[in-house]
Amino acid sequence: MTWPDLAPDDPFGVHNLPYGAFDAGPQPGDGGGGRAALGVRLGEDVINLSAAEERGLIEAQGALMAGGTLNRFLDLGRGAWISVRRQLIDLVTDPGRRDDVTRLLVPLDEVRLRLPFDVGDYVDFYSSEHHATNVGRIFRPNQPQLPPSWKHLPIGYHGRAGTVIVSGTPIVRPCGQRPSADVPEPTYGPSQRLDVEAEVGFVVGRRTDLGTRVSTEDFAEHVFGVVLVNDWSARDIQAFEYQPLGPFLGKSFATSVSAWVVPLDALEHARVPAPEQDPPVLDYLREADRHTYDLALQVRWNNTVVSRPSFRGLYWTPAQQLAHLTVNGASLRVGDLYASGTVSGPDRDQTGSFLELTWGGAEPIVLADGSSRQFLEDGDTVTISATAPGPGGASVGFGQVSGTIKPAH
Amino acid sequence: MTWPDLAPDDPFGVHNLPYGAFDAGPQPGDGGGGRAALGVRLGEDVINLSAAEERGLIEAQGALMAGGTLNRFLDLGRGAWISVRRQLIDLVTDPGRRDDVTRLLVPLDEVRLRLPFDVGDYVDFYSSEHHATNVGRIFRPNQPQLPPSWKHLPIGYHGRAGTVIVSGTPIVRPCGQRPSADVPEPTYGPSQRLDVEAEVGFVVGRRTDLGTRVSTEDFAEHVFGVVLVNDWSARDIQAFEYQPLGPFLGKSFATSVSAWVVPLDALEHARVPAPEQDPPVLDYLREADRHTYDLALQVRWNNTVVSRPSFRGLYWTPAQQLAHLTVNGASLRVGDLYASGTVSGPDRDQTGSFLELTWGGAEPIVLADGSSRQFLEDGDTVTISATAPGPGGASVGFGQVSGTIKPAH
Repeated sequence: MTWPDLAPDDPFGVHNLPYGAFDAGPQPGDGGGGRAALGVRLGEDVINLSAAEERGLIEAQGALMAGGTLNRFLDLGRGAWISVRRQLIDLVTDPGRRDDVTRLLVPLDEVRLRLPFDVGDYVDFYSSEHHATNVGRIFRPNQPQLPPSWKHLPIGYHGRAGTVIVSGTPIVRPCGQRPSADVPEPTYGPSQRLDVEAEVGFVVGRRTDLGTRVSTEDFAEHVFGVVLVNDWSARDIQAFEYQPLGPFLGKSFATSVSAWVVPLDALEHARVPAPEQDPPVLDYLREADRHTYDLALQVRWNNTVVSRPSFRGLYWTPAQQLAHLTVNGASLRVGDLYASGTVSGPDRDQTGSFLELTWGGAEPIVLADGSSRQFLEDGDTVTISATAPGPGGASVGFGQVSGTIKPAH
Repeated sequence: MTWPDLAPDDPFGVHNLPYGAFDAGPQPGDGGGGRAALGVRLGEDVINLSAAEERGLIEAQGALMAGGTLNRFLDLGRGAWISVRRQLIDLVTDPGRRDDVTRLLVPLDEVRLRLPFDVGDYVDFYSSEHHATNVGRIFRPNQPQLPPSWKHLPIGYHGRAGTVIVSGTPIVRPCGQRPSADVPEPTYGPSQRLDVEAEVGFVVGRRTDLGTRVSTEDFAEHVFGVVLVNDWSARDIQAFEYQPLGPFLGKSFATSVSAWVVPLDALEHARVPAPEQDPPVLDYLREADRHTYDLALQVRWNNTVVSRPSFRGLYWTPAQQLAHLTVNGASLRVGDLYASGTVSGPDRDQTGSFLELTWGGAEPIVLADGSSRQFLEDGDTVTISATAPGPGGASVGFGQVSGTIKPAH
């Protein structure tokens, strides 16, 4: 169904309205290249927000009209985020403006979705206790399962912002140095242990000055919305390189994000208490209103759903991650992205990486077509999707994050 | 002396011509805010390049006229870099155009220098064998001094691009979680082991596509020039957080760079053979013309020169670092910055960090005023400078990178 006949519980109904950027095909006067328009998803359509502002139907200080990416709009701050969301809801629920809305709609299958925001810095955390424990057991079997600092702070590191790409972009299998079981020297070639990491990412919409910090209470002033993230990982390259400075080429070849940014304001019904923490955390990580979001993820490997990780069980919340990220005075820029780290639950079919799902390749998984897998093969497609509770029994849909593996060059 | 009376061996003579960006004070019509102009340093003056292009004295497709940062100019590619350098040399050496040049000059002490380029991604390597060995001995005394992969690949990681700042910006002492010798739990507070890392950074001027790589031969097609870098480091915060994902808050509060980018083309006389490598490296790291640059660094702690590290001894060259950074298909953007890692030589007074200079604080150093230091105190100023051989006995000067420590908030 399409608007105005959307089912009340459509995951992309009026209660959601996630933001993105798209090419709507060649437009008159754009010389064939075309500048991306900004849009909001409504059912199986996109509302052209740039056109909406041009036509005076939405007012956002010209930031939507400008097109390109969401950064100019985000930079207007939370007041404008709330105002534009309210204007949008008014617009699409006003029977007197149906013709206006209809003229703004573009079918989703006729547009090419683009990276919705210019990424400032990209930070990846490591906030799932199940994931960190599993990785410890697989990679460092003779050491304590959790690193000593794990329960004191949300461990994180910087990834490569320039290789954050939008869902649907092909993933070329990376080459690099891999350890060899047979010879003492590393060998060079395509990764043989190519993996996924199903994560949830948070998009910063408000900058801060160098030398200042963001408290856990101010989370919603600074974070605009949520994307799904696949932090593709070459486990063999990572294993050889990561001591002592952390992951580098094993991760930096590509990180995919969903094309739609779900605003925090669409997730009010998805707020849930976060797990208790023991030992108690230091003051700057305490939360007066400790909460997280009840996102149910699904990981599909070709045509088989192989895992259903739940975000709500993560030990460190997004507000704690942001407070930690800035406690040393590091400044934020509009478009900064920070991700949760792999979302894994306690059971094997709740793990967010294939490293865990196949236990380092030792226990291959059989897909629906009868083939078995340890890690990704060329031609494989992985799609991560998610839903969260919305108002009145509806769910909030997230844009999927999908990618297909191309052979190494 | 100032132009045209510069000494032939002035380190900022016509053989150097490093690029930067500056505020020249309020200009007519800029409303008091002012857009940065681009400039080139000549002796103790700055040539206003933006004005030069506006007046038709230099042609760079409007990229210099635009002001702001160097990124638009860099994006024109190596052909334009060579052409503008030649135009500049012609301009300042043509006796018939002395009045034109004079009208473009602004005394260096009347301008405020700005960050010369918008930083894409910032990568930091770990390429000094002496530094890596020293750090291994101090931090991991019971393990092999070099990590197993160290001689197979240039180890590196991503730092925070948004906190790369220009020389002269104050450094607020960061807070964070520090390990405690007395209690099992970490404590929170200002870093007590605040340190420097004297490094050399390379500025990427030519982008690449995702899934492609840059060979060692193509280094000079992609790298525009060189800056000095101080990668400020909070050793206590770093020590507690860095396992297993590498340095994060111990580094992300600030990384200072010099305000002047010395073009590679000014360093032709500084090219020297790089150290031999054993074991032999894999093919993608081999160099037909293996070389590095003979930069002599100097580290000044308040009024005392405490160290004179030499860049030429580093095990991994800038061309190898770039080839490694992209071997997995990671794309480059204009403005990407990658740094060498701490430059340390074999002797104590050649080390590029105070961690090494004071051997983890165990052997304090006495400054010229008689005070002693283990790590940085509030109010301390560190200034890193460098020179390299130029033509005919002249030297090539680098803009210094300097910062003063402010108390924690």
